[in-house]
Amino acid sequence: MEKKLEALKTRLQEIEDVKLATAVLGWDQATYMPRGGAPARGRQMATLGQIAHEKLIDPAIGNLLDALEPWAETLPYDSNDAALIRITRYNYDQAVKIPSSLLAELNEHAAVTYQKWTSARPENNYAALRDNLAKSIDLARRMADCFPGYDHIADPLIDLSDRGMKAESVRALFADLRTQLVPLVKAITSQEPADNSCLKQHYPEDAQLAFGLQIAQKYGFDLHRGRQDKTHHPFMIKFSINDVRITTRVRENDLGEALFSTLHETGHALYEAGVSQELEGTPLDGGTSSGIHESQSRLWENLVGRSRPFWHHYYPKLQATFPDQLQNVPLDTFYRAINKVIPSLIRTDADEVTYNLHIMIRFDLELALLEGTLDVKDLPDAWHARYESDLGVRASNDINGVLQDVHWYSGIVGGAFQGYTLGNVMSALFFAQAIKAHPEITKEIAHGEFGTLHTWLKEQIYQHGSKYTANELIERVTGGPLTIEPYIQYLHTKYGELYGL
Amino acid sequence: MEKKLEALKTRLQEIEDVKLATAVLGWDQATYMPRGGAPARGRQMATLGQIAHEKLIDPAIGNLLDALEPWAETLPYDSNDAALIRITRYNYDQAVKIPSSLLAELNEHAAVTYQKWTSARPENNYAALRDNLAKSIDLARRMADCFPGYDHIADPLIDLSDRGMKAESVRALFADLRTQLVPLVKAITSQEPADNSCLKQHYPEDAQLAFGLQIAQKYGFDLHRGRQDKTHHPFMIKFSINDVRITTRVRENDLGEALFSTLHETGHALYEAGVSQELEGTPLDGGTSSGIHESQSRLWENLVGRSRPFWHHYYPKLQATFPDQLQNVPLDTFYRAINKVIPSLIRTDADEVTYNLHIMIRFDLELALLEGTLDVKDLPDAWHARYESDLGVRASNDINGVLQDVHWYSGIVGGAFQGYTLGNVMSALFFAQAIKAHPEITKEIAHGEFGTLHTWLKEQIYQHGSKYTANELIERVTGGPLTIEPYIQYLHTKYGELYGL
Repeated sequence: MEKKLEALKTRLQEIEDVKLATAVLGWDQATYMPRGGAPARGRQMATLGQIAHEKLIDPAIGNLLDALEPWAETLPYDSNDAALIRITRYNYDQAVKIPSSLLAELNEHAAVTYQKWTSARPENNYAALRDNLAKSIDLARRMADCFPGYDHIADPLIDLSDRGMKAESVRALFADLRTQLVPLVKAITSQEPADNSCLKQHYPEDAQLAFGLQIAQKYGFDLHRGRQDKTHHPFMIKFSINDVRITTRVRENDLGEALFSTLHETGHALYEAGVSQELEGTPLDGGTSSGIHESQSRLWENLVGRSRPFWHHYYPKLQATFPDQLQNVPLDTFYRAINKVIPSLIRTDADEVTYNLHIMIRFDLELALLEGTLDVKDLPDAWHARYESDLGVRASNDINGVLQDVHWYSGIVGGAFQGYTLGNVMSALFFAQAIKAHPEITKEIAHGEFGTLHTWLKEQIYQHGSKYTANELIERVTGGPLTIEPYIQYLHTKYGELYGL
Repeated sequence: MEKKLEALKTRLQEIEDVKLATAVLGWDQATYMPRGGAPARGRQMATLGQIAHEKLIDPAIGNLLDALEPWAETLPYDSNDAALIRITRYNYDQAVKIPSSLLAELNEHAAVTYQKWTSARPENNYAALRDNLAKSIDLARRMADCFPGYDHIADPLIDLSDRGMKAESVRALFADLRTQLVPLVKAITSQEPADNSCLKQHYPEDAQLAFGLQIAQKYGFDLHRGRQDKTHHPFMIKFSINDVRITTRVRENDLGEALFSTLHETGHALYEAGVSQELEGTPLDGGTSSGIHESQSRLWENLVGRSRPFWHHYYPKLQATFPDQLQNVPLDTFYRAINKVIPSLIRTDADEVTYNLHIMIRFDLELALLEGTLDVKDLPDAWHARYESDLGVRASNDINGVLQDVHWYSGIVGGAFQGYTLGNVMSALFFAQAIKAHPEITKEIAHGEFGTLHTWLKEQIYQHGSKYTANELIERVTGGPLTIEPYIQYLHTKYGELYGL
């Protein structure tokens, strides 16, 4: 058995090596690559993706799994080896269902469409992308059809990033959330809006970067095991458990941009860097789902980084860094500014409360496109209509409408967005659990200390990598299923206090 | 035939993609990677190397070559397709002779030894590396034995980087060169040494980098198709014909370091970026040999960048950039400083005249180690003895002795050094040919213009990539074989004038 297990691990490590190498190429593409490098880079990444897929669907892996499974069933469910075989079986069975040719077509189409989007978006030219999008939907349907037996055509696509979730369960959760959020937004927006002009002064780039990175390090981001670089769209990426990188962008006329995106990506990075070293080089060595990942970025960005205790400690330091801009701005004004709630057009700029409404619009439109109840030619109008009805705002163009997010133009349509709101909901669930276990966490945050929280998250979530599905993990950590209550309570408490509701 | 050719090209492109991806990982490792990333990165690069090798030795490539060769023989020798099949046959026949297991052992040994060298060198601890070096020699011999029928055991290793060269032919060329160089060095060093103190003032890093990069761009280095980053040991690396990067290091107390290493790496980069776009993604898409590559770096660094006409144009600009340091230093003093000849201990700091003596020492010691006439335990003493007899200097430790260069500690022993001196010799050969074709080049250089020279080199050398071997290329460009005369004449003219010989 041991020899077979070793053989399996060797194969899986090779696959992991190729995937992580692809990640390095992607990081370079988004940070330092000169524009001349683009065509070859796209080709190189596609080739590596193809190689990783071919190596995963090698029948030898199936045979090793067949031989190892009876033995794995004698192991405790929580053991690394049992999890390795369980998860590899799942990945293998999923992968063999996808023909290599479909994957190649998908990768090529995604690369071409993304390239087109980068120029069509500034030109407000949705028409130029309509055929590409139609093909993306067609490819997504063909991808879904690789997994027959689904209830909704989006289910297999949602499952790819949030395993265990389905269109129906997400819809139900979103509907619940919506009944809570809409009145809250209405109550807030009937008040005088917060004044966030203090954030919109000139803040020099270097000082912004240094301030954000200093907090990231205090959170636990280790610069010997990671780094930060500048990019156009911030992201976190991992090359090994000991090399996890974040990227950010700076706007010199908006203090919030670099600061909160840094804290957000740091949350993702703490998760990846906190995976047990024993899982390195296996398919268990990364975060388990899009929702769980987002819960960690949002927890560190919002529940910690936009909280009053946090700024109780950090605001004097921020004022000392930017005295000309902030010495006459009281903490309370600043705190209201970074938590300003206002219905807006752009998802990534949205506040904590309205953010989920942006996601629900996208999720519903995705389902309609996949179902065929919405045609790509009607998408821009459907977008505007939903923004008007849900948020009371309407974009004057498609740049801030249907061309806004890269997701539909860089992969398949379906399963791309639900993770953001699932993450918001989970972030409050986990944070409440952490506070319950260690009530001193709030006080520590008010002293700029994050060790207890970080250690608890590592023990409860990070170390496990992908050993457990999101639902298993939530059950383990909270003793129950996913629930929106802690999130609703968090929003009501925080914004009730802020807006005197 | 066309279908088979397409099938071959698809396979070769995949191999090229994997190799160039490995290069990206190597670049990141040497520029930005945090130290925690090292172990996984080594593993990832080894995995990709193994995959590229396995894909090249796939019998399907042999079969395609068998089928295509009769057709290729009907094509003109110079056609891209004929060259593709000719060179692929050579690469394939070479690769299939090397067992994958030997390659894996070699890669692993190289990674371990390199890691050890990085700490053993500063500790002056050759003893710690002796067993590793012995194993490197053993591995090199086993590698050579994959190619039976050689005249000298180093021949197959030399052939890997300088195809067509052999221990005997290099020895003969080096012996000729030596009889010319030794009296020249003696004549120069009997004079008052040049004063290079003007270079050893404080020069701020940013201004140094900007000045060097400005010249690189003027040479023809295109920042849309490349970039420059900082590293510990400068190098050039290519990810595609349209993404060729250089790296440099800066010493704020030595103006020569960053400047000339930038011009040197720019020469390498112009070669790679000048390869015909038609060859992209094929094994022909890079420089053809270590010697030819070095000829281009040395040409742009020395024959252009350390010439009097060049500084006639650039010295006033350099003075304007560093007025405090240089406004009272005459051009002639500066020109003598950057061309100071002095026997020294460190190869990479050596001047144009003594540099080759450093190479010859290493080349001879490599041969002796491989032949078994020199034991690793006697290597440090043999090193010191040769430096004393050849250059009249003796290092007080092994840091500046046998631990000086990374080559023997990061790969196999054999074939690592001859390319440097071959490159010096070739640089003068090509430059003389360029001047013969376009006598106006010297005048253009004196006006800071390099277009005629760059265009000539592109047409004669760069565009061909690896279509021709070094010897074929030299024959095509000069109408004869490799000869040392132009190099000797260049040195005599330049240093005769400088030292009034």
